[in-house]
Amino acid sequence: MAQRFLPAERREQAKDDGRGLAMTFSALDSALLGPSFATAAMAELFSDRARLRQMLRVEAALALAEARYGLAPEGLAAAIEGITLDALDIAGLGQEAATAGVPVIPFVRAVQALLPPALEGDFHRGATSQDIADTALVLQMREALGLVQKDLVAILRGLETLATAHRDTPCAGRTFGQHAAPISFGYAVALWLSGIADIAAELPRRRDRVLVASLGGPVGTLAGLGEDGPRVLASFADALGLGTPLVPWHVLRARLVETGVWLATLIGALAKMATDVADLAATEVAEVAEPHGRGRGGSSAMPHKRNPLSAGIILAAQVAAKGHVATLLEAMAASHQRPVGLWHAELHALPPLFGLASGALREARRLAEGLVVVPGRMRDNLAATGGLIFAEAVASRLASRIGRRAAHDLIEHAADAARESGRPFRDILAEQESIPPDLLAAAFDLAPALTAAAAVVDHAVGQARSVLAALDPKDA
Amino acid sequence: MAQRFLPAERREQAKDDGRGLAMTFSALDSALLGPSFATAAMAELFSDRARLRQMLRVEAALALAEARYGLAPEGLAAAIEGITLDALDIAGLGQEAATAGVPVIPFVRAVQALLPPALEGDFHRGATSQDIADTALVLQMREALGLVQKDLVAILRGLETLATAHRDTPCAGRTFGQHAAPISFGYAVALWLSGIADIAAELPRRRDRVLVASLGGPVGTLAGLGEDGPRVLASFADALGLGTPLVPWHVLRARLVETGVWLATLIGALAKMATDVADLAATEVAEVAEPHGRGRGGSSAMPHKRNPLSAGIILAAQVAAKGHVATLLEAMAASHQRPVGLWHAELHALPPLFGLASGALREARRLAEGLVVVPGRMRDNLAATGGLIFAEAVASRLASRIGRRAAHDLIEHAADAARESGRPFRDILAEQESIPPDLLAAAFDLAPALTAAAAVVDHAVGQARSVLAALDPKDA
Amino acid sequence: MAQRFLPAERREQAKDDGRGLAMTFSALDSALLGPSFATAAMAELFSDRARLRQMLRVEAALALAEARYGLAPEGLAAAIEGITLDALDIAGLGQEAATAGVPVIPFVRAVQALLPPALEGDFHRGATSQDIADTALVLQMREALGLVQKDLVAILRGLETLATAHRDTPCAGRTFGQHAAPISFGYAVALWLSGIADIAAELPRRRDRVLVASLGGPVGTLAGLGEDGPRVLASFADALGLGTPLVPWHVLRARLVETGVWLATLIGALAKMATDVADLAATEVAEVAEPHGRGRGGSSAMPHKRNPLSAGIILAAQVAAKGHVATLLEAMAASHQRPVGLWHAELHALPPLFGLASGALREARRLAEGLVVVPGRMRDNLAATGGLIFAEAVASRLASRIGRRAAHDLIEHAADAARESGRPFRDILAEQESIPPDLLAAAFDLAPALTAAAAVVDHAVGQARSVLAALDPKDA
Amino acid sequence: MAQRFLPAERREQAKDDGRGLAMTFSALDSALLGPSFATAAMAELFSDRARLRQMLRVEAALALAEARYGLAPEGLAAAIEGITLDALDIAGLGQEAATAGVPVIPFVRAVQALLPPALEGDFHRGATSQDIADTALVLQMREALGLVQKDLVAILRGLETLATAHRDTPCAGRTFGQHAAPISFGYAVALWLSGIADIAAELPRRRDRVLVASLGGPVGTLAGLGEDGPRVLASFADALGLGTPLVPWHVLRARLVETGVWLATLIGALAKMATDVADLAATEVAEVAEPHGRGRGGSSAMPHKRNPLSAGIILAAQVAAKGHVATLLEAMAASHQRPVGLWHAELHALPPLFGLASGALREARRLAEGLVVVPGRMRDNLAATGGLIFAEAVASRLASRIGRRAAHDLIEHAADAARESGRPFRDILAEQESIPPDLLAAAFDLAPALTAAAAVVDHAVGQARSVLAALDPKDA
Repeated sequence: MAQRFLPAERREQAKDDGRGLAMTFSALDSALLGPSFATAAMAELFSDRARLRQMLRVEAALALAEARYGLAPEGLAAAIEGITLDALDIAGLGQEAATAGVPVIPFVRAVQALLPPALEGDFHRGATSQDIADTALVLQMREALGLVQKDLVAILRGLETLATAHRDTPCAGRTFGQHAAPISFGYAVALWLSGIADIAAELPRRRDRVLVASLGGPVGTLAGLGEDGPRVLASFADALGLGTPLVPWHVLRARLVETGVWLATLIGALAKMATDVADLAATEVAEVAEPHGRGRGGSSAMPHKRNPLSAGIILAAQVAAKGHVATLLEAMAASHQRPVGLWHAELHALPPLFGLASGALREARRLAEGLVVVPGRMRDNLAATGGLIFAEAVASRLASRIGRRAAHDLIEHAADAARESGRPFRDILAEQESIPPDLLAAAFDLAPALTAAAAVVDHAVGQARSVLAALDPKDA
Repeated sequence: MAQRFLPAERREQAKDDGRGLAMTFSALDSALLGPSFATAAMAELFSDRARLRQMLRVEAALALAEARYGLAPEGLAAAIEGITLDALDIAGLGQEAATAGVPVIPFVRAVQALLPPALEGDFHRGATSQDIADTALVLQMREALGLVQKDLVAILRGLETLATAHRDTPCAGRTFGQHAAPISFGYAVALWLSGIADIAAELPRRRDRVLVASLGGPVGTLAGLGEDGPRVLASFADALGLGTPLVPWHVLRARLVETGVWLATLIGALAKMATDVADLAATEVAEVAEPHGRGRGGSSAMPHKRNPLSAGIILAAQVAAKGHVATLLEAMAASHQRPVGLWHAELHALPPLFGLASGALREARRLAEGLVVVPGRMRDNLAATGGLIFAEAVASRLASRIGRRAAHDLIEHAADAARESGRPFRDILAEQESIPPDLLAAAFDLAPALTAAAAVVDHAVGQARSVLAALDPKDA
Repeated sequence: MAQRFLPAERREQAKDDGRGLAMTFSALDSALLGPSFATAAMAELFSDRARLRQMLRVEAALALAEARYGLAPEGLAAAIEGITLDALDIAGLGQEAATAGVPVIPFVRAVQALLPPALEGDFHRGATSQDIADTALVLQMREALGLVQKDLVAILRGLETLATAHRDTPCAGRTFGQHAAPISFGYAVALWLSGIADIAAELPRRRDRVLVASLGGPVGTLAGLGEDGPRVLASFADALGLGTPLVPWHVLRARLVETGVWLATLIGALAKMATDVADLAATEVAEVAEPHGRGRGGSSAMPHKRNPLSAGIILAAQVAAKGHVATLLEAMAASHQRPVGLWHAELHALPPLFGLASGALREARRLAEGLVVVPGRMRDNLAATGGLIFAEAVASRLASRIGRRAAHDLIEHAADAARESGRPFRDILAEQESIPPDLLAAAFDLAPALTAAAAVVDHAVGQARSVLAALDPKDA
Repeated sequence: MAQRFLPAERREQAKDDGRGLAMTFSALDSALLGPSFATAAMAELFSDRARLRQMLRVEAALALAEARYGLAPEGLAAAIEGITLDALDIAGLGQEAATAGVPVIPFVRAVQALLPPALEGDFHRGATSQDIADTALVLQMREALGLVQKDLVAILRGLETLATAHRDTPCAGRTFGQHAAPISFGYAVALWLSGIADIAAELPRRRDRVLVASLGGPVGTLAGLGEDGPRVLASFADALGLGTPLVPWHVLRARLVETGVWLATLIGALAKMATDVADLAATEVAEVAEPHGRGRGGSSAMPHKRNPLSAGIILAAQVAAKGHVATLLEAMAASHQRPVGLWHAELHALPPLFGLASGALREARRLAEGLVVVPGRMRDNLAATGGLIFAEAVASRLASRIGRRAAHDLIEHAADAARESGRPFRDILAEQESIPPDLLAAAFDLAPALTAAAAVVDHAVGQARSVLAALDPKDA
């Protein structure tokens, strides 16, 4: 029925989509590339059908709220709810939106055409396009944050298990890519866990701040609804399970920015893990491997390859996410009651952040739940430098005895000698008169490093459990 | 046939796309929003079908080049060319790509399955995934830059006409949003024209640098092709009409960055025009209006609105484009012979820049060819400040006579007096003994401003013509 | 004394700074440009002397905490506190830092040289460079956030007063730069107020999360301090009035990112106001002017100019801030126990955000406390379109009567007719049979718009008061 | 003398700078951190004194050009040239600039006060602030690009030598951090060399486009100079050795963007090398080390450390540079004849890019000229996987024989078996009937990989030589 809004060739084009003609400027939206970078579940939430479904839902909630105050006929909400998506010509709406400037305009027109004449006049009453579009976006975000939360819970659980399992697995601590001092692998995992838990802990607050309805009418004042305006707004928000805004947020976009930024920091926290995994999986290090599956991480030319694919997807998300944050921040400088261009720019930035996050979370979960750890290799690598990794432990013990600077210089020279001669560092140190044998033995003991590392693991696990309890009642 | 690569439910999902379930994280790719922000012609070039078509074309060119040196059977190229896109299950390839890490891997497998057993073994010989993906991208860019060029030619012609038509139409020059000194409207247009022409002039060089084939094999050395490697490469590039790289560019991404940046600066140059148009179309200024069409730039709530929609689309592109540039720049730090994540990140950034540019160019062309100019309003606005806009002309003439600083102070005080009293600025100045009447008459004469502005218009038109001659043989 | 670390020519160079040779790559740091963009108070907090002072303070707190557990001699903390900044050769330290890679290394060496030999060996015990640098940064941020808070309180108070004063001053609401529907100017201010208050409300939480000490030693485990590590850490944090981290944050940088992002969103909220001010101050609109002062906002060539300088400074901060956020986000992907390059990158990004915020806040305060408002001009502009601004009010009233679409079309045509004929919109509407006179009278009544706007003003004022009460005990 | 512009306390503040109170929001400008990140030579070019010196030079050139056409007295240029920087109170100018909005306004006033009354009135005639500031910036950039060029020449020469020296040194090629197929280390260096040469090749064009004078007066038309305007402009540009603009570029900022982007891509090309160096210097890989010097790359806690410090500085520059590019791009949307805020934003972005580039170039030169290469370790690492690195060579040879897919699967299984059993990959392959011994021998031969790699080295060296010839006449 709505088909009449479009000439025949456009409808043809719209139908073609299933055969690969869908627009795919973004890798997230490509049938070929998208499944690598985003989950199907998240993609569905941001599909055009989902958007339209939410827009209908928003209009129905508005009709319901207005009916309560005599501003709309009783049957309007039900009539809106009765409209099926198939009655709307999505491609046609898109073409008209390009003329009108926002998709809500042709949407309103198309819905009016589907409503009984007696109800049509009160449809969309008092609202402006942005009210419908923004509230629909909020509903999409509510579901999307639900998906994010589910993955976060799984990742935190997976990493908690991994950190606990390797709480006492010795491993080289590395700074600037160089062996620094011993840690446990569980400690390395605890840093991932704590970093992700720290972001996850903010999720409830982010939800509270952003899951707020928008209803302000043309200039935000809801003047068109008269004295009942504020009550209609509250009732509308209530019907959708959203917060009621104190002040219209047509041009106050900070909370959308916060949500986008939160996703970007989440991706950043996952990227810390991904960086480590990619590095530890390097051929020469080989302390971990990504979970293997048939055909996973291979190469078209190199059949022996096991590429750290999950790490790659996460890191690509990290690279791509930041630009979208800048776009959202720029859109804050919205002029007057509606800006030129800036609102539209948000549309380019916020959904992709959810898309990128969904793929990064999926891959992070894969790592958290299935990372292959090779403790033997960790031990080998620890030993490979002939004890240089204990240099700090010797130096710090020596400092109180001979002075910090003298200790630093002595160890630096011994390390140089070990590197140049190829002799074990410990042997060279043993020849130094100023270093008593028991100091040396204490410094080359892994136990203190492991004990200290274990304490951090325990803290991180505790932190994660408390975050899990807040995010997932089953963990309480 | 390729359908067998996918279980039934996935195929179902793939078919659903035509009904609005296509992934639409990016507004560019939404059936609802995309037509507002990108052109259908550009979208087609970056569709999955187009990508696959180019990948087949690249493989065919490789087979042809290898056959010439006895490295592939004669019939292979033709067999590849004979494969129709319908034989490839795009959604299935996408699912497999998510496992494999790059779409070229399942693509190669699917094509092998479609080739005769006798030819299959030499398919994709010596190449790596990135060779195929990058060269296909280059072919997409060649066509995309063709579209860009076509729009650029139209915009330059439109603005040349507009600048010439209003070469002598008086208008207020504005700095910091305030009236500054008189100009012509043609001069304002000449700045748009020159800014866009200056970017357009770089297009041939950008094409030359980026339209280069990629063929390096697993680590870029083409070692798998033996001594004929360099010859195969040259022949391959030749077959596609592309440049031959001196050095493999798997991890040398500067020229892709340049192309993306060029698009962003192009959008930036269009945004200069869009900013001015949005400002000049503001209700109180009203010196220009966007070309009007039925339903264009309206409001769902405000039937009287004529929103500067084209300007908005261009400005939204400007906001969104910059983040993609940052992504491309970040991807330059690609490690070794192929990085983890960075190459994938490029996929998120370069095609969207073409998408954003296509929409911005379409709207800029609409403005260049149809902007409504209201010279009467320009004259009214010039007069509205009671002559304050001539303040600089008085001050500069007065400076040589009474000193620069004294002149500046005198005029500043007179301007304050005019603002506060509401009396015409010129009358107040006429009372000043230090200002002779002929100086005042000369300063309040529009002619010198218009003459000077006209000279710039002529320069900009000359510049544009020379760029047009380079871009479009018809203008030569 | 520390002078001996540097050859004579370097000392010469360091002394030259006062004569304009100081490095000034950033406009924030230029003696010529800096005062325009940042406050002297904020600059002092981020000066090299302040940085070194905080580093000494951190080392003293560490010595104190360690002494408590017998890990450092009693007199060490006092000896560190006794060191004056003048004993440190800042330029020399900078030169050595360029060799060492971090300034803490030469700093530790220089302080050791200034300490009695008996104490020197226990200086900096168990700590790593990043502990000192990060904790010093946190102390700088604490003071800096104090300055931010002070300005925020002043801005909120100023805008509260302004919004209240103009609660009922009629004014045009504008969308896409076009007159949309009537509002009050107080309502426009209420949007600024609410936007800024909404960011300000997050400040306490941002403080809590970021004002946390760092003490982890070489790889974060504090292994060097043995079993007392966690207690020393708690005592150290306590001595500085900072939070104790659960887990070392050497490579967990999310909270720094959050702080930087918070500053950027704050600047964004100020930029919303600045955009409006710049627009409303445009010559043709002239509804507001920036507070005037002798020589403020002038032009070297145009003595009559009154440029919206404060708005410009805020908008420049908004443009420049976003890139720094991207830098901070990128630094989250820190590898292992310390990354290559990413930590250093943060140094380029976080202090400039404080600098930009300080200037933007100063200018926002100037606007909030001194904006010149011209109600008469607002009334004139409202009237200038012959009533078109009431179009929505007519259309929405008419919709229930004749259907939404018919109403929309009728008004759209009447608006076109008004624009083309130059006749008042109301007169044209009065000729329409379908519009009863009382409907027209009601629609052209400003009162409902003002009533609705006033309700929002009251909400925003309430919100601001509650935020003020949280930020400033005097408001409680 | 100019001191009178400032109250006493401000002068005090200004003098303090030498003791570390200079503003240091940017790490580039800190006496402590700056020397790590930027060179003193570049810092001097962007110091306030240098800026003022160039501004005086620009005004003198203007006076000279105007005198030629009778628009300024003969002695004015010489009088301007006679002014010494010490006569200008830089800190005072900065304070006044904060009031005026641009530093040129107080600068003009201060210079007028220093000129004889008879000359003062014609000073700065016809010019606007931006003309002076922009042209001075161009002069700074000319010198800065000279420094960049000098470092580029040294880097290209260093890398040419390094690539040639290791043209045949076997080494593992790596993709996704995993061993892929053999290359030579010279080939790895050739990629750095070619990437940097490719950017360097654009320098002459970037110079030509950006080294253009600005002289347009208040609104760009040079109307104040009457008919001689264009001639004065040409003469002015000529006197400074700069290009003459066709059209005023007050609001056409593309070429500044291009320059900033070029610096960012240059940093990106250096970052490719830095990433590789940091990775190859990792403890487990240890194929290269940064050139060592006393105290270089150490740790305050770990005396054995040799951190890849140069790589870290370059990578930090890469992280920080991209945000500045976004700022420059945003500033393109400059409204009318001068924007609010956008021009000021450029000041935050362009000089820091030169600063970041200077440090990155210095460190890159250090690497190019002094990288420690360990061929023995490269050989060991190549051998460490038991021949897996030859997998692709076997697979590609096998493909023509048994089909591409079968070959791929066979090798994949053999690689899995080698990894699981710990037996050498070659032994496992030797047991396969389908692989003839001579095929195996050929595939495990390093020679073809080295030959192919050497050809690329030669190409890159040729490319670099041709770029060097263009940049440095001595190489021609």
